[in-house]
Amino acid sequence: MVTTEHVTDALRTVEDPELKRDIVSLGMVREVRVEGDQVHLTLALTTANCPLKERLTEDTRKAVLALDGVSHVEVRTTEMTAEEKGRLAGAGKPEGTVAGLNDIRHVIAVISGKGGVGKSLVSALLAVALRRAGQRVGILDADITGPSIPKMLLPNGARPETSPTAFLPARTASGIGVMSINLLLEDESQPVIWRGPLIGRAIQQFWTDVLWGTLDYLVVDLPPGTSDASLTVMQSLPLSGAVLVTSPQDLAGMVVRKAAQMALTLNIPILGLIENMSYFTCPNCGVQHDVFGVSHAAETAASAGVPLLGRLPLDPEIARLCDQGQIEAYAGEAFRPIAEAIVARAPAARPPIMPAK
Amino acid sequence: MVTTEHVTDALRTVEDPELKRDIVSLGMVREVRVEGDQVHLTLALTTANCPLKERLTEDTRKAVLALDGVSHVEVRTTEMTAEEKGRLAGAGKPEGTVAGLNDIRHVIAVISGKGGVGKSLVSALLAVALRRAGQRVGILDADITGPSIPKMLLPNGARPETSPTAFLPARTASGIGVMSINLLLEDESQPVIWRGPLIGRAIQQFWTDVLWGTLDYLVVDLPPGTSDASLTVMQSLPLSGAVLVTSPQDLAGMVVRKAAQMALTLNIPILGLIENMSYFTCPNCGVQHDVFGVSHAAETAASAGVPLLGRLPLDPEIARLCDQGQIEAYAGEAFRPIAEAIVARAPAARPPIMPAK
Repeated sequence: MVTTEHVTDALRTVEDPELKRDIVSLGMVREVRVEGDQVHLTLALTTANCPLKERLTEDTRKAVLALDGVSHVEVRTTEMTAEEKGRLAGAGKPEGTVAGLNDIRHVIAVISGKGGVGKSLVSALLAVALRRAGQRVGILDADITGPSIPKMLLPNGARPETSPTAFLPARTASGIGVMSINLLLEDESQPVIWRGPLIGRAIQQFWTDVLWGTLDYLVVDLPPGTSDASLTVMQSLPLSGAVLVTSPQDLAGMVVRKAAQMALTLNIPILGLIENMSYFTCPNCGVQHDVFGVSHAAETAASAGVPLLGRLPLDPEIARLCDQGQIEAYAGEAFRPIAEAIVARAPAARPPIMPAK
Repeated sequence: MVTTEHVTDALRTVEDPELKRDIVSLGMVREVRVEGDQVHLTLALTTANCPLKERLTEDTRKAVLALDGVSHVEVRTTEMTAEEKGRLAGAGKPEGTVAGLNDIRHVIAVISGKGGVGKSLVSALLAVALRRAGQRVGILDADITGPSIPKMLLPNGARPETSPTAFLPARTASGIGVMSINLLLEDESQPVIWRGPLIGRAIQQFWTDVLWGTLDYLVVDLPPGTSDASLTVMQSLPLSGAVLVTSPQDLAGMVVRKAAQMALTLNIPILGLIENMSYFTCPNCGVQHDVFGVSHAAETAASAGVPLLGRLPLDPEIARLCDQGQIEAYAGEAFRPIAEAIVARAPAARPPIMPAK
């Protein structure tokens, strides 16, 4: 005697070819009714005129017909409600590759090796300068365990839009697209305690599963270190080149030289070096101080064989705007010539060694 | 017709059970002589009365006897010279576990999640304060891709001593033992482009294969992030507890809260929070400035439920001494009460979840 449970179990073998998950866990199976050797059920599709409708219906019919005691199967279709689609997008991870729909002309990685020198600030200021110049710009936050980009550029609680097949980047006030792991966490303080392979997979998905659309520039903000995250970005994204960020200390320069060596080893062109936190001008007496010691940026640039693109001051206004998610409002024009120099040196996106897929 | 090459190739299958490498690459095979169907050779052992002598000799005999055309094998043994042993220690990695010879009373991890907030500085100042108080102290630099500790505490070109079975930590002027990947690299700017498992293995070896001897305190300097390196330290070293480091920005605090959450998840007691780069006092006019914005340390400490142990100033003297490897000479007494508070709160080393081995 066939039961609805038997039917449901059989349907767990039917996979949605686009979402790559079984139709039961996707919540597509409705109104299963068994009458003797006849089974009636409804499939809720993500769109009424789903191109895979025929195939899904047929796969469903066959799976149920294969049950002992079933001689007839009737499959109707309906469309999910907007709410159901939303839940689907939130619960399952969108697995369809939308990378084919993106057209991204230049991909610029911001690297350092060293933490806390201002990679995220440089990424944000570069994106803002490009956006102000009328370019279409996105930021891919590849720092999965210590993401700073959303805090700097978006209001608290910003979320990416999701569809069953893709994430849509969150948008800043001026229209910069942003994707970051922190946009997907319920609480921004929640740690992401993942080993390397998961980190790498998340970064790849920010490339393959985010509908960036057409972008003139995608800025990729890297985490510190020369391990998994950096390797994944350098090996699997079509980088035009990398911008190096350092701070005045030789201690930082030493670690930055490691990152430069890594980029060279992986044939990533280095577009130049930016020194951050270079000096502090006392707002009281106007005297300029080398708070982090005498600059070693020129040596670091020379040893990496790249131009020193500029030096950024320590400015409490930057800290304040970053903490408020309003770095886009930073009036500093110091970054404009730096962005222009980067653009002038950045070739088009180049095929990566091991493309993300 | 058997040649010495055939014999050597066959011997590449014989592994030293202790050093876990084949006896040919270890340089143990000497004076191979082939006379018709008879083979004579000498094995150079690391110690004359090597407990594995019988087994190595027998494995060697069998491997050569398995060659077509060999009917008799004579294996003699000798001892390596001191120089050969030294070379062996340098070339191969010492695989003997010496952890059993160590007696380490307290293991304190310095964590942040965020890069560049001063974990290494706090690690160094903590070690120096403890050493000044007469304690026996070591620093294990768990930042494999961005190590800062040697630069701060040791002269350029410092190296750990090695023996065939262990690394001996390098020693600072005041006698703090230091182990760091940068002490093993030919050039400090050489990147370590390893994925997570190798990073984790290296950290474990700094515990198992370093002859720390008897220590009152081992300070473990963590890299940024909550991925492989942090997981390995928190899961496999017998931590007494962790000290959190932050900088004034809420942006940093947010990432630091992730690290605090991770430690709590893994049942690591948090001993307290230290804020670094808290303020800068203009040496010209004496006015104090919140260079990185208004402090969020009290909030960060409260949200993690830990005491705020202290706030450290931005001091160009620190940058200068770090770049010169002389942070031990830092006169600042601001850290003494902080170290005392840490010591007062630090329990004895506790067994880890998954002990390093």
